[in-house]
Amino acid sequence: MKSNMRLNREAVLHIPLSNYAFANSENRLTIRIRTQRGNVSACTLYYGDRACADTPVVFKEIKMEIKARDELFDYYEATFETPFLRVCYYFKLQNEVEWTYYYSDRFTNELAFTFLDQNMMEERSEYYQYPYILKDEIPDVPDWFKKAVVYNIFPDSFACGKYTSPLNPKNVVLENGKVCKSRLGGTLRGILENLDYIQTLGFNCIYLNPIFTAGEYHKYDTIDYYHIDPCFGTNEELKHLVEEIHKREMRIILDGVFNHSSWEFFAFKDVMKKGEESKYINWFYKLNIPVRRPQSEKEKPDYACFAYEARMPKLNTSNEEVQKYFADVGAYWIRNYKVDGWRLDVANEIDRNFWRKFREAVKKENKEAILIGEVWENSESWLRGDAFDSTMNYEFRRICRDYIIGDHKNALTAAKQLERMRLRYPTNLVNGQLNLLDSHDVPRFLSLCKGDERKWRLACILLMLFPGVPSLFYGDEQAIGGIKESEYRNPMVWGKNPSLCKFVQNMIEIRKEYIENNTSYELLWDDTNEQVLSFVREGSKGRLFVSLNISEISQKWDKEAGKMILASSGDKEFLETMGYKIYLKGK
Amino acid sequence: MKSNMRLNREAVLHIPLSNYAFANSENRLTIRIRTQRGNVSACTLYYGDRACADTPVVFKEIKMEIKARDELFDYYEATFETPFLRVCYYFKLQNEVEWTYYYSDRFTNELAFTFLDQNMMEERSEYYQYPYILKDEIPDVPDWFKKAVVYNIFPDSFACGKYTSPLNPKNVVLENGKVCKSRLGGTLRGILENLDYIQTLGFNCIYLNPIFTAGEYHKYDTIDYYHIDPCFGTNEELKHLVEEIHKREMRIILDGVFNHSSWEFFAFKDVMKKGEESKYINWFYKLNIPVRRPQSEKEKPDYACFAYEARMPKLNTSNEEVQKYFADVGAYWIRNYKVDGWRLDVANEIDRNFWRKFREAVKKENKEAILIGEVWENSESWLRGDAFDSTMNYEFRRICRDYIIGDHKNALTAAKQLERMRLRYPTNLVNGQLNLLDSHDVPRFLSLCKGDERKWRLACILLMLFPGVPSLFYGDEQAIGGIKESEYRNPMVWGKNPSLCKFVQNMIEIRKEYIENNTSYELLWDDTNEQVLSFVREGSKGRLFVSLNISEISQKWDKEAGKMILASSGDKEFLETMGYKIYLKGK
Repeated sequence: MKSNMRLNREAVLHIPLSNYAFANSENRLTIRIRTQRGNVSACTLYYGDRACADTPVVFKEIKMEIKARDELFDYYEATFETPFLRVCYYFKLQNEVEWTYYYSDRFTNELAFTFLDQNMMEERSEYYQYPYILKDEIPDVPDWFKKAVVYNIFPDSFACGKYTSPLNPKNVVLENGKVCKSRLGGTLRGILENLDYIQTLGFNCIYLNPIFTAGEYHKYDTIDYYHIDPCFGTNEELKHLVEEIHKREMRIILDGVFNHSSWEFFAFKDVMKKGEESKYINWFYKLNIPVRRPQSEKEKPDYACFAYEARMPKLNTSNEEVQKYFADVGAYWIRNYKVDGWRLDVANEIDRNFWRKFREAVKKENKEAILIGEVWENSESWLRGDAFDSTMNYEFRRICRDYIIGDHKNALTAAKQLERMRLRYPTNLVNGQLNLLDSHDVPRFLSLCKGDERKWRLACILLMLFPGVPSLFYGDEQAIGGIKESEYRNPMVWGKNPSLCKFVQNMIEIRKEYIENNTSYELLWDDTNEQVLSFVREGSKGRLFVSLNISEISQKWDKEAGKMILASSGDKEFLETMGYKIYLKGK
Repeated sequence: MKSNMRLNREAVLHIPLSNYAFANSENRLTIRIRTQRGNVSACTLYYGDRACADTPVVFKEIKMEIKARDELFDYYEATFETPFLRVCYYFKLQNEVEWTYYYSDRFTNELAFTFLDQNMMEERSEYYQYPYILKDEIPDVPDWFKKAVVYNIFPDSFACGKYTSPLNPKNVVLENGKVCKSRLGGTLRGILENLDYIQTLGFNCIYLNPIFTAGEYHKYDTIDYYHIDPCFGTNEELKHLVEEIHKREMRIILDGVFNHSSWEFFAFKDVMKKGEESKYINWFYKLNIPVRRPQSEKEKPDYACFAYEARMPKLNTSNEEVQKYFADVGAYWIRNYKVDGWRLDVANEIDRNFWRKFREAVKKENKEAILIGEVWENSESWLRGDAFDSTMNYEFRRICRDYIIGDHKNALTAAKQLERMRLRYPTNLVNGQLNLLDSHDVPRFLSLCKGDERKWRLACILLMLFPGVPSLFYGDEQAIGGIKESEYRNPMVWGKNPSLCKFVQNMIEIRKEYIENNTSYELLWDDTNEQVLSFVREGSKGRLFVSLNISEISQKWDKEAGKMILASSGDKEFLETMGYKIYLKGK
């Protein structure tokens, strides 16, 4: 720290009722404040009972600690048991040059009193407020999900039988003449017959891309929300699949596409046919009557769509009938087929009231059901208890991408970006984020690694051991590559890469053994540099030190080595050869 | 600007889907970014269609302008018509030393592309996103409310007849023996008979503190949510009062106290009587069974309360039955009595789902009904479309308090704080904030002015001409003072201060004539200093220049004086004598 620096007030950030101030449980609060990196030498939190009858409020004092750092900032944090549920608080920041209080987004050297002649008036409302820790509003995620390790299957591409890659596509023509397309020929039966494979790898949750009746092979243009696409199988087959999955104490999550439907969806067909007379005229967004299909691929539709895809007209999700229809769909599959949750497509283009209704309906069937929104950007506003429990964490992928791409000097940058990401939501929610390296929507991560499996493994270790729920796209464990959509949705292969499978299996084992919800994460700055990213996770199962070396030159890393034991028997050499070391401390 | 300064990255702030990025209408977006004051010489916004089929996205460029400043920061803003509803955007910041792009909360000199051998992949999801401008989610407030000028009446204190201060309190004993207390004796009839007075002053909306059957004189401990307190009158009298108010094209807002009830509320009595057997056992928060009243004033209740007031047990607002009960109450008075909205007590200690249900029920009866939450602090999280349209703006009071207290050197500080406040919500919501100088919960503003009417008037001009909806507490216009609760709820007086009344009337006239929803506000920095706060408001009715001089020494202020005409005929001398000037530019 430069000792002649004034406090950098411009850098200070605290936002009440956000990732800077949240309850972890009914009696446990976390308060954070951001300051310029190295600018503040001590930060103290004062908190009191904002409803206390005595005046002035009596404040307790806690020394805050730097719990995270990134390129620009230190993040001070205090997590504490509070004896009262209504909390007011303020900060004191100091360095060697000066000090200040901070509350009401203001810097001041005085506490909140107004003096008027003989009257001293306490203005306690001017401190920061945590109005009430309400037990039903503590940000959290269903427990089982925080323990999930997710295998993401794109059904058309996965399997049509045991260890059988789908290579026999067969379109199906429905009774009414609609065509359901198939590109490769994967089926539900294919998934069923490979549950052993998935479970043996260690996965305990399957997330399926869409499986309802739809026109295109990817099934994101739903025609019938109540039936399984005939290319994939039948409703009965899904029921059986779910039962088999549950027998194995695994879970299953379906993909819900409610932003838009197919233009073959009954309501849109009705609108096209009857125009103003249709009961469903308000089910779609920005229609021009009469509704007509574009005459060519080039012509833009004159109704709102997903992107500008005429085949996927946008639903009017602020219409209460539409909300009701899809809340019913959401509840139906939970109730009757016992699926364990929904991944929700294009979630951020949908009316928030739609999600409130949907959430209410689903949670009424099963309050442990998980709702995961497809939101690529910071999704803080979608994780406030009225929409999703979790979102797809593409930021995790991005950090990993920048980490492995380039000149092998990005470890420190990645470490800092992970720090920031780790603090962007309340802790419970960070632990419930769906972290991923790739999906059906982006190039295979291995291809970003230019096929370098060593790099892929580094990222996989992060995926498995960083806070959040890991999700692996089918076939990553078999080193499937692909930059273009048609490539990265290539058919599953079996037995291509037993060593990589073994590695994934080992990592999942380690994760399951050592990572619990309250396992801490701490970046080891002393052991982190441009090549090496090191962190420790500590919980009731012991301490797990992880050090990832992106360079091809071996690095000395002897962190308390003497006190540690090796992670997975037989893997020591293997892991060290690959350029990283994993040690586990015994309990 | 210091020309050798690097960009202060720590000071930069942009938050998607917040007051930094919001829709004003379906085709009009406002995007803001905060930078260190004087640190950036140019800020450019680039925005494009995030759903466009072409790759890469074509971006349009807008030069952003500094629209507000405070002590530490410049706030750049661009408000623009967007031809598409799904927008991605990024910033370019520059000064004389360097430049940077800013998106994904990162500073970089490169746009979002990944290069991989021959492949250039556009990563458009990494720019900032405005996912979809949905027409039902544009932050706004009912139009009538933005035109409201509110008179806030504390019913017990106001009147018991025409120009008749309440000085004859009479407790009423209900059939079941409950006592409804009265301290001064105000009635609904008293309000009815003084509508002329209120309307003549120019107010077009009345907000009543609670009027339902309750124990204490202030009526914040509701016993019966379906009946007017007998001290005040009858349901029929309310109906008549509302009709008379509506005949005058005025509006009326009631005070809803749903965080807690009285311990005489039927449900709490049932719980006290029947314990575990009561149907209402889950209607209250943190009960210990058997429920017992504290035996003395000193003893803390062993159930949750408003503060620690045993007479006001806290309702369990996460219970769906409770939500339903009060949503019904909310709808009942709108439907059957045609009241125009609710002010909602202790709003921030109540479950958000409670408010969602409440809002839905009320808006179903009348989508123009206004919902105003009692939230003293920054209430951004309560103004997201699922809870309140507006909140009580105590921050406005606080800035005015600090402005008028002290050594007459606080005008510049106040100006800066007003700037920050003005940007803390989307513009439509700022225009719907309930600005106030005092209320039933704080000392009279005139007493903070130590009785100096000149200062009070300065604050009143701000109240009337600053963005937001002015609310005046009854009797402020008659120079009622009071530091203690018993004082500031003193009986209304009539005819005590005709000159102040005339002033208030003039200010309301000016407001009504010149301020519309889209009237701009701009602080005039060149005419603002420690003593003088100057701003201009401009809209279709012309330009209104306002300059407030807190010192007692007259100031030269000739802003375009030649082109201006005087505000209210006959008032020029009066206004100038009082130490401030108001000019209006002709249309």
